[in-house]
Amino acid sequence: MTSTPHLDRVAGPADLRDFTDDELAILAQELRNETIETVSRTGGHLGSSLGVVELTVALHAVFRTPFDKLIWDVSHQCYPHKILTGRRHQMGSLRQKDGLSGFTKRTESVFDPFGAAHSSTSISAALGFTIGRDMGQPTGDAIAVIGDGSITAGMAYEALNNAGSEGRRLFVILNDNDMSIAPPVGAMNGYLNRLNMPHASLSEIAQGFMAALPASLREQAQRARQLVTGAPPDATMFEHLGFTYIGPIDGHSMPDLLATLRIAHARAEGPVLIHVRTVKGKGYAPAEAADCKYHGVSKFDVASGAQSKGRANAPSYTSVFGKALTDEASRDPTVVAVTAAMPNGTGLDIMGKRFPRRVFDVGIAEQHAVTFAAGMAASGLKPFCAIYSTFLQRGYDQIVHDVALQKLPVRFAIDRAGLVGADGATHAGSFDIAFMANLPDMVVMAAGDEAELVHMVATATAFDEGPIAFRYPRGEGAGVDLPVRGEVLEIGRGRVLKEGTKLAFLSFGAHLPEVMLAVEALEARGISCTVADARFAKPLDHGLITQLASHHQALITVEQGAEGGFGAQVLHYMANNGLLERGLAVRTMTLPDRFIEQGSPAEMYRDACLTADDIARRALQALGVETLARGQIRANVI
Amino acid sequence: MTSTPHLDRVAGPADLRDFTDDELAILAQELRNETIETVSRTGGHLGSSLGVVELTVALHAVFRTPFDKLIWDVSHQCYPHKILTGRRHQMGSLRQKDGLSGFTKRTESVFDPFGAAHSSTSISAALGFTIGRDMGQPTGDAIAVIGDGSITAGMAYEALNNAGSEGRRLFVILNDNDMSIAPPVGAMNGYLNRLNMPHASLSEIAQGFMAALPASLREQAQRARQLVTGAPPDATMFEHLGFTYIGPIDGHSMPDLLATLRIAHARAEGPVLIHVRTVKGKGYAPAEAADCKYHGVSKFDVASGAQSKGRANAPSYTSVFGKALTDEASRDPTVVAVTAAMPNGTGLDIMGKRFPRRVFDVGIAEQHAVTFAAGMAASGLKPFCAIYSTFLQRGYDQIVHDVALQKLPVRFAIDRAGLVGADGATHAGSFDIAFMANLPDMVVMAAGDEAELVHMVATATAFDEGPIAFRYPRGEGAGVDLPVRGEVLEIGRGRVLKEGTKLAFLSFGAHLPEVMLAVEALEARGISCTVADARFAKPLDHGLITQLASHHQALITVEQGAEGGFGAQVLHYMANNGLLERGLAVRTMTLPDRFIEQGSPAEMYRDACLTADDIARRALQALGVETLARGQIRANVI
Repeated sequence: MTSTPHLDRVAGPADLRDFTDDELAILAQELRNETIETVSRTGGHLGSSLGVVELTVALHAVFRTPFDKLIWDVSHQCYPHKILTGRRHQMGSLRQKDGLSGFTKRTESVFDPFGAAHSSTSISAALGFTIGRDMGQPTGDAIAVIGDGSITAGMAYEALNNAGSEGRRLFVILNDNDMSIAPPVGAMNGYLNRLNMPHASLSEIAQGFMAALPASLREQAQRARQLVTGAPPDATMFEHLGFTYIGPIDGHSMPDLLATLRIAHARAEGPVLIHVRTVKGKGYAPAEAADCKYHGVSKFDVASGAQSKGRANAPSYTSVFGKALTDEASRDPTVVAVTAAMPNGTGLDIMGKRFPRRVFDVGIAEQHAVTFAAGMAASGLKPFCAIYSTFLQRGYDQIVHDVALQKLPVRFAIDRAGLVGADGATHAGSFDIAFMANLPDMVVMAAGDEAELVHMVATATAFDEGPIAFRYPRGEGAGVDLPVRGEVLEIGRGRVLKEGTKLAFLSFGAHLPEVMLAVEALEARGISCTVADARFAKPLDHGLITQLASHHQALITVEQGAEGGFGAQVLHYMANNGLLERGLAVRTMTLPDRFIEQGSPAEMYRDACLTADDIARRALQALGVETLARGQIRANVI
Repeated sequence: MTSTPHLDRVAGPADLRDFTDDELAILAQELRNETIETVSRTGGHLGSSLGVVELTVALHAVFRTPFDKLIWDVSHQCYPHKILTGRRHQMGSLRQKDGLSGFTKRTESVFDPFGAAHSSTSISAALGFTIGRDMGQPTGDAIAVIGDGSITAGMAYEALNNAGSEGRRLFVILNDNDMSIAPPVGAMNGYLNRLNMPHASLSEIAQGFMAALPASLREQAQRARQLVTGAPPDATMFEHLGFTYIGPIDGHSMPDLLATLRIAHARAEGPVLIHVRTVKGKGYAPAEAADCKYHGVSKFDVASGAQSKGRANAPSYTSVFGKALTDEASRDPTVVAVTAAMPNGTGLDIMGKRFPRRVFDVGIAEQHAVTFAAGMAASGLKPFCAIYSTFLQRGYDQIVHDVALQKLPVRFAIDRAGLVGADGATHAGSFDIAFMANLPDMVVMAAGDEAELVHMVATATAFDEGPIAFRYPRGEGAGVDLPVRGEVLEIGRGRVLKEGTKLAFLSFGAHLPEVMLAVEALEARGISCTVADARFAKPLDHGLITQLASHHQALITVEQGAEGGFGAQVLHYMANNGLLERGLAVRTMTLPDRFIEQGSPAEMYRDACLTADDIARRALQALGVETLARGQIRANVI
């Protein structure tokens, strides 16, 4: 371990306020080293954290956290913040079960006043805190730190608009790591040293700041400002809205950051935007050289930067989707695809390599993505809108209003359905079955394994009568053989995998292997089981449900989603068609009615009581056969 | 009726292309008169339609609709468009059952390529059409017409961003009716007459356009541009993005509109934004004088402008909410309220009159509204977020990610729950029970009558442990006495209104009077009924449900919402607690699995098979007593 004499003196941010500026600069370097070593052991979001080391130190040194509210947008860049705010010795548990979250979290620390994980929420929340402060609540200033990607999302724009018109004292730090021009370090020093002009207003200081730049840099600074604000120094959108703009600042120069934050803190009367330029991965050569690769990393060797590889078993659902869609696209020139800033995460990069002009990355803009796809569908194209379950929540109204109501054939490829692992509760894909299947005219499928996913891509390509969605989980498939070419499934028809006599399982989606394991255990106890894969939550296979209900003592539905989804659809159908009053026992196995904290997906499903063991026990309870303690049936997929 | 010789010659937009420019101007005046007369007989959105009469004529004259795709944002301004596109003689049925929609609608006309009703979707859809055109689909140019209110919403910003970077030929007409400065009619004529410069590019023309303005107007024009784009002529956001900006144009000058649209149509290679200034209510003095009042009107007398008044019975749920919240706010200084551009529609104007600094109108920005409220809650305030059910869909991810996950005590006042009447399917509040009740830690209530609503406002004010929502319908209450002061309800506890022995009704929300009517009819046939008001969809009253299930032959749930909501919650509970296998018949009465077209709310509920008659018949069927044809039980609330 590197020695960290300054960091060792920090029990909390208050201690930073006794450091000299030079000591703060040294502290930042120690903090950087500690962050690299920590993440090398746990994996996590390295590059974004390294970019804000100095900014983190400077913000905590100048503002009175936790009385002042420091809100990190997305918050995957919060590792240095966590180290400084009393969580240094827990960093080894980062993103692990019962460990520290990889994001800010209100329940974890008073220094996390507002949690995040989805982007572009910080300015809205910060504005809320300023209202609280101005109405006498015991809270100080609010500071939102937001990246140049996140600030372009619609929600951030809405918040800037509102914050500007409210005109309250509020700090927005724009963390801009997308610029290649060299930071104006030297040029600024003189001006920054003179910042404490006794009578100047902050906006006069901001103007002086710009004037102090040499001509060449001034032009670049104006350009930078325009990139963000669409406006030049004499009439920016921010200024029209009432924001004072200061920047760009070198986000790795501690003196510049401290001088700027101090003057802003001392003089701001209304909303201020401070534009800070940072380098993602700053200070760690492997990360600086390849910051995309180091956005989220596995454990790695600090000296070489080599990341440890996971075992390679079955292909991931994501890559199976990407290849299957590319295959369909090669046969049908009207197939197009939309992603909201996730080409790699969704597997659309695979199609993009072959058909670059048919894959549209619209940025962090799920609302637009959905309606854009609806427009393409209305024009006669076959759009696949590939969005993680959790982020599709951002486009929900557009799904209702622009797609379902108009019965437009948009194909929704819903990745990361169900529990997702280390990103935890904020990223869980729990609600999509419910919010999609409740919509009229929406076809909703889930893949029982990766071969089924290939069929569903083919089915969605062929189906042109209205919207259709298919969901699949994060991670590896079940390891089944993949078909050479997907076959078009009959809409609303499930499949029976195994016929039995006493107990029926109706599974929807990728929990099917767990169900099969439970069945093995049950049959070993002499209980004959039928297993069906529903394939469709909508339209339901009424014939299949009626058959299962008529010939078994109990029916168990299983899904990787919250209540109100597949099981609810089945229950509604059975209730309203007289299938429930005949003495049949029905149980719905869903995610429980609570948020499941981070862990491996297996750990999370165990926490959620959705293992093969849980399924078998619930089945026995439904039959009234016996009641077993957890763990008496051993099933080990999860 | 005014004589309309020019309008009478128009069978469709193609006919406009044979008119001279002077004839088009006369046609516009006839179209204006026709619009006024039409709306005076039907009611509807008058002011916004009158503002775009000339623009509608000019767009159809210059572009080749329906091959070119004209997309009206929100589309309540589409009445002149409907009159010109073959629907003139159906205008008398506007917004009535089986009549013309008050919005554009794909199923109604090929001239409506993309329906709307919620705001800010048009640019996304238009961009989708341009992709289709560029990929060889049989479609021409796409033109989005969007108002100055709608363009500030986050979704529009996302779309502009994406459209600019795509760089495809696309037309965005900014219909700006918010400006008081006089239109630069005279000043423009000379330049507009010279627009057909043989070799100039459109951006050169756009620059010349600006230069042709006299200095005073040029400054105003630049200011106008900054208001919208945040940018001056030499480096606008639009221009940075690749948009060519032209404007402002006098939207009531047919020559200016025609000249500008023609040159843009002839020369555009990339995306173009044409800024048109219009006057809401233009040409009808009562509307111009009071355009807010004439945004949506009842039937009115053309000569005097006097609107016909509806009968005044019970107070509306909305006003009961507004008064009850004001009452709570007068006792608790931490109560604040948020609206997304609907202070009147939500009743928050009532609170705003008394506590103007505690009501926040954030504009059309539901995503921001929800997280802003979450920030206020985190600071210690008690925010009420009052949003119509249908628009709350825009803030769904924020409800999940910022409110529920953090268990922040945001109060959601969900107005316009259930079917809403003339605005039709796009405005129905069908899904909120499901999308709210499926979230962990969310308390979800619905008011059985307006007195219950007062209690729920009090309950939400008192409840500070997490998020809480209450829903209530559009329109008048049931006419019950209002309490002097709301009482705090016990969380998760329903109430029994009537005890019986054979049949149990469990009602959730404002359909309670229908249930009572059904019960009257059933008891007249000798069937003893219990009626309970669940009050809570979450947490459920388990004791009440167990009791109802144990002592009756059938249990019927009733709600003004889609499947997956209250009934689903009840079924899940009953299934997983062994209450379904005892022979009890259960039925869930929800909105059906299809979109319900416009009509009066009563007509819509009839269409939805959710009248007292339907309820009684379903109950009899559940008991296996008899099967009746619809209408044999006469129940006349609906």
